[in-house]
Amino acid sequence: MVSSVEQKILEKIDDTNELKSGAHNIRSNGESISRSTSRTISIKNKEDKSGIDVIIQPNTKNQSVHVPVVILNQDITDTVYNTFDVGENSDVTIVAGCGIHNCNAQKTEHVGIHEIFIHKGSKVKYLEKHYAESTGKSQKIFNTKTTIEIEEEGSLEMELVQIKGVDDGNKDMEINLHNNARLIITERIFTELEQEAKSNVTINLVGEDASAQIVSRTVAKDESKQKFYFMMNGKNKSRGHIECDSIIMSNATVTSIPALSASCEDAELIHEAAIGKIASDQLMKLMSLGLTEEEAQETILQGFLK
Amino acid sequence: MVSSVEQKILEKIDDTNELKSGAHNIRSNGESISRSTSRTISIKNKEDKSGIDVIIQPNTKNQSVHVPVVILNQDITDTVYNTFDVGENSDVTIVAGCGIHNCNAQKTEHVGIHEIFIHKGSKVKYLEKHYAESTGKSQKIFNTKTTIEIEEEGSLEMELVQIKGVDDGNKDMEINLHNNARLIITERIFTELEQEAKSNVTINLVGEDASAQIVSRTVAKDESKQKFYFMMNGKNKSRGHIECDSIIMSNATVTSIPALSASCEDAELIHEAAIGKIASDQLMKLMSLGLTEEEAQETILQGFLK
Repeated sequence: MVSSVEQKILEKIDDTNELKSGAHNIRSNGESISRSTSRTISIKNKEDKSGIDVIIQPNTKNQSVHVPVVILNQDITDTVYNTFDVGENSDVTIVAGCGIHNCNAQKTEHVGIHEIFIHKGSKVKYLEKHYAESTGKSQKIFNTKTTIEIEEEGSLEMELVQIKGVDDGNKDMEINLHNNARLIITERIFTELEQEAKSNVTINLVGEDASAQIVSRTVAKDESKQKFYFMMNGKNKSRGHIECDSIIMSNATVTSIPALSASCEDAELIHEAAIGKIASDQLMKLMSLGLTEEEAQETILQGFLK
Repeated sequence: MVSSVEQKILEKIDDTNELKSGAHNIRSNGESISRSTSRTISIKNKEDKSGIDVIIQPNTKNQSVHVPVVILNQDITDTVYNTFDVGENSDVTIVAGCGIHNCNAQKTEHVGIHEIFIHKGSKVKYLEKHYAESTGKSQKIFNTKTTIEIEEEGSLEMELVQIKGVDDGNKDMEINLHNNARLIITERIFTELEQEAKSNVTINLVGEDASAQIVSRTVAKDESKQKFYFMMNGKNKSRGHIECDSIIMSNATVTSIPALSASCEDAELIHEAAIGKIASDQLMKLMSLGLTEEEAQETILQGFLK
């Protein structure tokens, strides 16, 4: 049974309107509170630790699996180990958000350890939203560690979003791409107050004709701090592209370190990064249309993080 | 007295044709073998260690000072400490190359520790070429560590070139820019065989309206390895731009890590980097004009590193 607070949080982290129509596992305060599977997608508890194995049979097409995690009013560190095994020639969507509501708690922490295996020729879309809320002063912490293998001809499109309320977010990812594998990561991060966000992403272009693209857009406000370390290793004939854009406001700090390393003469690696404030001509234009400075800022930031 | 081998090496590292017409100090095998000063540029040996203090009086205009270092046929580590103090409102050129000729030696190492103070309103052009040659198999190593203060309204243009023969090159630089200070670094590096090159450059945009630009172009051939770490810290209203382009060939490895860090909302930082091989259409075009593949490659690399 899903409570109304749980429901509200779930809508924040999974806005697909399909949460319960497909295979799903809803984890709340460390327990599975709702689960369903399909003919080709099974979900089983891990035997040795907390978490689930999501096994998707080969040739599963146009299905989605939703594994949201919510934590409500608890002083806990909820650590979960999830494994996704996507069989050959599938085409699926995985939605894996996490939401914290901790009005009375001091410190609520979610630790997500994910493994994703995308077998030969499979196409996966992966969405992960982090959201937290509370009325009082309390720590809401997210730590995720994700390792991903994309086998030959496989493809993965990831959307990683941390929009609101996360005091301390650490993202650690390592992704190996084999022959002809393809990866696109789109990251959106917003921090304010004294929040901190860190991303550490390593992409290994192991196979021939592997290609990867990262597009990261972030906004840092107030005293918040962001640190991004992206490493793209071209170990074979391959293509890699990293693009990071950040807007800073007030006393925020953004450090952006996109590293390229090529050890093959047929690797083509490119990155671009920019850190700056909101363009004043855009602000002026919106203000001349009748918006206050704050409204104009908000509109520009919304567009930037869209 | 300058020998003919010394003369040949000097021409490689200082092609200005002005080496002896201005103030200069030629250091060969750890000893000063030729020195002259001018009315406003003095050169004195350091009392506590090997090296010189170059003191440029305020308002010194259109003068140059040349401080080449050569090492011939010696198994040594020649460590030199040089300090350059450029008085206010000057406009000078510093040429500080280093050349090693070590036909019979096993291992020849140059360690250059430089401090450069550019006082208020001064304009400095700094050229540094590293060159090494030998007929046998021997180690030719360069390690430089440079710290630079550019006071308000000061400007520095650096050209750093490592074109040939350096087996192991390590460059370490830290530069502080104060109000309205300006910096342009142009770096050119070529490595082949099993050579290694590392650059570690930190630029601190401390003052208001400071601006810095790094343009790095490198070519890595054969089994050679290059690693670049550029850090641009925007600590005030300022602008920073890093641009790194590398061509890799055969089994070379290039790692390029240009980091940006902004802790002020009025800092504007940008970087771009690309690693790839020679464009095949350029090769084809030159080969269609009658050049062999090797000649065509050579022509493209020359143009790229110009």
